[in-house]
Amino acid sequence: MDGSDHLAHERSKAQFDVEKMKIFWAGSLYAFQVSNRIACLVAGDPAFRKENRAVLSRKELFKSTLRKAAHAWKRITELGLSEEEASWLRFYVDELSYAYVHWGMFVPAIKGSGLETTANFDPKTDEFIIHSPTLTSSKWWPGGLGKIATHAVVYARLITDGQDHGVHGFIVQLRSLGDHLPLPGITVGDIGMKFGSGAFNSMDNGFVRFDHVHIPRSQMLMRVSQVTKEGKYVHSNVPRQLVYGAMVYVRQVIVVDASIALSRAVCIAARYSSVRRQFGSQINEISGTGVETQVIDYKTQQSRLFPLLASAYAFRVIGEWLKWLYTDLTQKLEANDFSTLPEAHACTAGLKSLTTSAAADGIEECRKLCGGHGYLSSSGLPELYAVFVPACTYEGDNIVLLLQVARFLMKTISELPSGRNYKLAGTTAYMGDMEHYLIKYCCNVQKTEDWLKPNAILEAFEARAIRMCFSCAQNLTKFADQSEGFSELSTDLVEAAIAHCQLIVVSKFIEKLQQNIEGNGVKQQLETLCYIYALHLIHKNSGDFLSTGSLNPKQASLANDQLRSLYAKWRPNVIALVDAFNYSDHFLGSVLGCYDGNVYPKLYEEACKDPLNDSVVADGYGEYIQPLLNQQS
Amino acid sequence: MDGSDHLAHERSKAQFDVEKMKIFWAGSLYAFQVSNRIACLVAGDPAFRKENRAVLSRKELFKSTLRKAAHAWKRITELGLSEEEASWLRFYVDELSYAYVHWGMFVPAIKGSGLETTANFDPKTDEFIIHSPTLTSSKWWPGGLGKIATHAVVYARLITDGQDHGVHGFIVQLRSLGDHLPLPGITVGDIGMKFGSGAFNSMDNGFVRFDHVHIPRSQMLMRVSQVTKEGKYVHSNVPRQLVYGAMVYVRQVIVVDASIALSRAVCIAARYSSVRRQFGSQINEISGTGVETQVIDYKTQQSRLFPLLASAYAFRVIGEWLKWLYTDLTQKLEANDFSTLPEAHACTAGLKSLTTSAAADGIEECRKLCGGHGYLSSSGLPELYAVFVPACTYEGDNIVLLLQVARFLMKTISELPSGRNYKLAGTTAYMGDMEHYLIKYCCNVQKTEDWLKPNAILEAFEARAIRMCFSCAQNLTKFADQSEGFSELSTDLVEAAIAHCQLIVVSKFIEKLQQNIEGNGVKQQLETLCYIYALHLIHKNSGDFLSTGSLNPKQASLANDQLRSLYAKWRPNVIALVDAFNYSDHFLGSVLGCYDGNVYPKLYEEACKDPLNDSVVADGYGEYIQPLLNQQS
Repeated sequence: MDGSDHLAHERSKAQFDVEKMKIFWAGSLYAFQVSNRIACLVAGDPAFRKENRAVLSRKELFKSTLRKAAHAWKRITELGLSEEEASWLRFYVDELSYAYVHWGMFVPAIKGSGLETTANFDPKTDEFIIHSPTLTSSKWWPGGLGKIATHAVVYARLITDGQDHGVHGFIVQLRSLGDHLPLPGITVGDIGMKFGSGAFNSMDNGFVRFDHVHIPRSQMLMRVSQVTKEGKYVHSNVPRQLVYGAMVYVRQVIVVDASIALSRAVCIAARYSSVRRQFGSQINEISGTGVETQVIDYKTQQSRLFPLLASAYAFRVIGEWLKWLYTDLTQKLEANDFSTLPEAHACTAGLKSLTTSAAADGIEECRKLCGGHGYLSSSGLPELYAVFVPACTYEGDNIVLLLQVARFLMKTISELPSGRNYKLAGTTAYMGDMEHYLIKYCCNVQKTEDWLKPNAILEAFEARAIRMCFSCAQNLTKFADQSEGFSELSTDLVEAAIAHCQLIVVSKFIEKLQQNIEGNGVKQQLETLCYIYALHLIHKNSGDFLSTGSLNPKQASLANDQLRSLYAKWRPNVIALVDAFNYSDHFLGSVLGCYDGNVYPKLYEEACKDPLNDSVVADGYGEYIQPLLNQQS
Repeated sequence: MDGSDHLAHERSKAQFDVEKMKIFWAGSLYAFQVSNRIACLVAGDPAFRKENRAVLSRKELFKSTLRKAAHAWKRITELGLSEEEASWLRFYVDELSYAYVHWGMFVPAIKGSGLETTANFDPKTDEFIIHSPTLTSSKWWPGGLGKIATHAVVYARLITDGQDHGVHGFIVQLRSLGDHLPLPGITVGDIGMKFGSGAFNSMDNGFVRFDHVHIPRSQMLMRVSQVTKEGKYVHSNVPRQLVYGAMVYVRQVIVVDASIALSRAVCIAARYSSVRRQFGSQINEISGTGVETQVIDYKTQQSRLFPLLASAYAFRVIGEWLKWLYTDLTQKLEANDFSTLPEAHACTAGLKSLTTSAAADGIEECRKLCGGHGYLSSSGLPELYAVFVPACTYEGDNIVLLLQVARFLMKTISELPSGRNYKLAGTTAYMGDMEHYLIKYCCNVQKTEDWLKPNAILEAFEARAIRMCFSCAQNLTKFADQSEGFSELSTDLVEAAIAHCQLIVVSKFIEKLQQNIEGNGVKQQLETLCYIYALHLIHKNSGDFLSTGSLNPKQASLANDQLRSLYAKWRPNVIALVDAFNYSDHFLGSVLGCYDGNVYPKLYEEACKDPLNDSVVADGYGEYIQPLLNQQS
């Protein structure tokens, strides 16, 4: 390694204060300082190295993850880290394991889709008998269930005296606290290898079956309802809505994860695209130099990479906003005010869907943007994708979530009094302007610069969303059976829900820019990122904007011209903008994305570590291949 | 396993002759019979089992692949298989290894992008000295290079007497034929783990560096030019165009691969979507039954899955057509007729790009359509994706290829005599109608049924492609410097090239349907597949069709209505259409896609095989986790 910074030239071109942008990305100066300190701690600890993860066998990987989890615990205790610092430490160790989640209390929740598991109350013994009769009712997937968890929360149909009371939660002990062996009647194990090498294979997602397992009555979760000693079923008056509060929380966290996962991929792709040069000989005229062109200077590369960088920032902003939304919601719920719950629920469901789908696709796109080398494990990108993509499926399948958003939107529209403006709260406020957007609205963009007016962007997105939603609502009225109509029109409803969710991201990003943001040039950068995010969506979804008449072809074309011109002007800031994520080389885990851009020696060094290179002649060559060659000659 | 066919009901609903469709898919009765016989042979041979691939360590995987390659060779010899049968056998063994490719002659070609490797002729010794001075010039990626290849074709700058003659090919021996050790001056090795578990990790993609390696003069590839004993450089008169012939061949093969890879994923997703049931309780009203709804009956599932099934068939048709194109081209090249080469080259480049991108995205979409279980290695889908996705990058990056197509299209337009119709050959024939499409054309679709007229579809696609191409050509004229213009407009050019390539697929599919196709209902099924393919493209790219005025919003909406109605009518045939691929359970390698649909016991059986389940308490638990728990309590 030559020790020099191969990206120094790129960094010198930045037109803003990178250190201040780091604070914006972190959320606050305090958050930046804590996370930065812990990131350095983890990066400097050899026990947390992760470069060999891809070549380990399943068993070795799992064991090594347990070792790291134990080491993390040890360091947390030794250094007396606060809970916040400890959670940053686990974050930067960057290895999935249930052993990190709840120390001393490994209790995954087993919900599953099969509802055949029953909890039959036996008043004679004051016990529930948990039983899953068929193989399909065995529960799959809970993380940590396979090999680690000692207890689980099991959701099962509660039956008392032959009567079915629906699904309730029960704490069931799975394994002995002494020898860790499964208890009688319990079959538990790991569900097997998953997508990718490394990735989620460090986690023991598990299955479990219950064969008449007896548990004490006290182990029913009795918050919502109770069973008395005599077997009487009693409802408590705890509102069911609290469950939705928890959902809002989990999905809010996933949105933040999406911005982090995408930003890691973008950081790798941006740095490598600046280091990598190609096809100079043909395009010398453009670069004006004798060397090959930096890949990042190709317009096709820019049009794929830059919107992803903008999306990473947009999702970061929306993640922060959702944190606020959750805090606000919690306060309301505690005060027994459930009025904003449906909107908050729809909002987080939709944004979880939107951001995880975009981030997963974006990570793969970043991998492809790195050419052949992106396919190497040492690029870090394959594992990043394999780790993140299940977020599109867990905690609500992304399409199912969009249908929930659509259901909420259709309900909102159906409750609007017809023919006049109406005040609506939160993210559906714009629907109060239904009449304006359906009848009067006409986009007044006439030249490229008009697309730098936040209002022009906002109105176009509002018009598109309202018109798509209203068209669905109208088509629904043609069906006698509402649920049949909803099913028939579900693909249109999904598209309308996406339009609504994209609008939320764009509008909250614009809103954020109304605030004071510190640092030389920082706000200008964020403004450009916001425009790029919005305009690339207009281009990508031009079919929506044109078919609803929210834009005409000329205006859509002007949006694309403005986008092109932003890319060109903004190009010098790209490396500094990914530096602002403040990711250490350890955390990135990518030879292509290393800070100093000294990619090629690192690629070679990583290649040499592959077990296949342990011996000059491969194991099996002499046994299988040599005899064939001898036979032939 | 209960031995019954869980998909029998689905199969009984088919409205066409499945056996005849199998022959259509195979290409001919003969091709069906040969491939079917060999598929059974491979599936029945325990030595070719592949279920443990994901859990093997890199070294074990590589060794097991060599073992299979040797076994394949043994069976081929024992059974006296023809070259065609042998290649089917390798196909069905379905494991990537260079050891399959050229028996006794493992000679990967090392092209790479770094052109710093030199071949300096030394007349004193009558040898070339091959040298790669820097690390970036070490050649990466050739399959088989790392651990298997004994020789390689190396492309290097030929230098005689200080003069650089550009890049030429040289056969360089890498390893001893005796002990298989690398020869002096040669550093060779494996480039390390790649995307996924299993997948391309069974292949030893390699790197190599040459430190003043001497090779005899006779090992220069002297077809195109020669170096005499005295060091004189002589051009032969072999036309350079022959190189393009080879490119056309390779890319044609990749298009066929794309249809196979996509069809495998679709087969898995379609069968599992028929077996899997969800959310019955809410939607009982629709299914009319007491059980949960088959996932395949959800419109959102259909709108994602059915176009992919149609795409698999469309790509199969275009693959067959490219085979014909290649044969035709070869005959012309042999007769020194190079007139059709640019069009054939653009055609295969564009179709390679189009089909591989669509197939890779489609495989991932199929994986997501299988919900959480699609993320399991035992679903077969993660490995299918990891194996196929590099096709988007190798043999020409897909974006670079589209730019080549665009360049060809711009050249075609620039050579059109203005103001009147002009006869053009092959896939650009429609551009002769430039005037018609730019001025007179107006789509006359007025009701949904109009979208079942092949001409309406064809004209809409032609209008869109011509208008997008022409708009690019016009914008290019605004630039004084052509290559600067090409660079600035490259994203628009890529979109125009895609429009052109989609048109080719649609038009060749329609053309195919003009022929006689055997079997009850087979042609009707293919017609529906063709409509679905075309109409889903219209919906997905509605922005293009609307902004070019090729369709108005009403017509685009009618196309979508027709698509929806086709899905509903066509639904009963889906399982039979994936059966027609005739893939054995061995070849599919998926517990979700198994023929009998008996998914859940197989999922469980596969899970139990994971090494983590070898012991009831996981390795490492006692060492790392138990002490922590004891500490806490």
